[in-house]
Amino acid sequence: METLVKKIIDFRDDRNWQQFHNPKDLAISLNLEASELLENFQWLSSEEAVSKNIKAIKEELADTLIYSILLANELNLDIEEIILDKLAKNEKKYPIEKAFGSNKKYTEFGE
Amino acid sequence: METLVKKIIDFRDDRNWQQFHNPKDLAISLNLEASELLENFQWLSSEEAVSKNIKAIKEELADTLIYSILLANELNLDIEEIILDKLAKNEKKYPIEKAFGSNKKYTEFGE
Amino acid sequence: METLVKKIIDFRDDRNWQQFHNPKDLAISLNLEASELLENFQWLSSEEAVSKNIKAIKEELADTLIYSILLANELNLDIEEIILDKLAKNEKKYPIEKAFGSNKKYTEFGE
Amino acid sequence: METLVKKIIDFRDDRNWQQFHNPKDLAISLNLEASELLENFQWLSSEEAVSKNIKAIKEELADTLIYSILLANELNLDIEEIILDKLAKNEKKYPIEKAFGSNKKYTEFGE
Repeated sequence: METLVKKIIDFRDDRNWQQFHNPKDLAISLNLEASELLENFQWLSSEEAVSKNIKAIKEELADTLIYSILLANELNLDIEEIILDKLAKNEKKYPIEKAFGSNKKYTEFGE
Repeated sequence: METLVKKIIDFRDDRNWQQFHNPKDLAISLNLEASELLENFQWLSSEEAVSKNIKAIKEELADTLIYSILLANELNLDIEEIILDKLAKNEKKYPIEKAFGSNKKYTEFGE
Repeated sequence: METLVKKIIDFRDDRNWQQFHNPKDLAISLNLEASELLENFQWLSSEEAVSKNIKAIKEELADTLIYSILLANELNLDIEEIILDKLAKNEKKYPIEKAFGSNKKYTEFGE
Repeated sequence: METLVKKIIDFRDDRNWQQFHNPKDLAISLNLEASELLENFQWLSSEEAVSKNIKAIKEELADTLIYSILLANELNLDIEEIILDKLAKNEKKYPIEKAFGSNKKYTEFGE
């Protein structure tokens, strides 16, 4: 993971791009890449999209990961730590006994 | 990285959620999380947003990473591999001599 | 307004596209167009973006309006009516005495 | 249409909000509203979503229209004009003889 992050940072620094990478613009870019990913599913069923566009899906998913990592770096966040923290929080929002097999949001759980 | 991915998959499987996780809906969810991240910057400068909302930014960034990892898993993609492949492709689109210190898209590079 | 909506619907029907226009895919398309609009602001200040990209901004904004109108049509919604209803609701969420000159969300209003 | 636009502008001005409404932040807000609209379709088929969430869909669609109109206003654009211009452009990108009954993007049309 550390080697991977370093490669992404090196790619940025080789181009002297950190000057543009304020967190707000990185969050915008992450949204744009997530949209380019979703564009591969437009007007298609999930299966059709994967079978027709897997190459582009792979690339756009990589781009969302790259921007997520760049944003974490800019904010001095440790990726593993924030994911583990969020999973712990989600365990409380979605306890197994209420969430099992359900596509409801936690706000829809009855008392 | 592998331990981390396993924890995310276990979280999903403990709740029997894979049945909902077709790639199209995962790509939608990734977009929704990227938007919730961006919402923390709405009407604020980048600095104001980070100083006011860092806790929420951390959590929403974690969610975009979690969904990216879930989507990669659903498509049997290796995260490190797709990122390295994309970096290699981006090196060609953005050669250092043209891209250094520039915020232009590759489509805007002159000949 | 009615003439305008009719032109958009005619454009769709001349191409026999309504078969693809289920509300979920239209909502996806609306998101993709909103992203293409936002792309024109990536890495730029608001002023720079407008001065550099006004032609593309105009076109992408038109596309988000077109998809909004197509979605409303698909759901048999009257555009003026849903906007007026939402404004009435927003008046309650954002009463002038609390919201005047403030960029806070209604959830942040103190008691 | 003019009366409707005037009501939206009055709502904004009664709250002295134009100071926040630079085009970049309005484009962000439009994306956020389009996402809140799409959230109503998450993990659901189009039919399930409409039948379960039509009230929220109506409200979020209204919000995307309101922000589109605010952005047009900020840029001094006439909504009818930009839509008609874009339809004319789309007629060339998607000529009836190539686009009839097809969900292809214009970039996928063969020669």
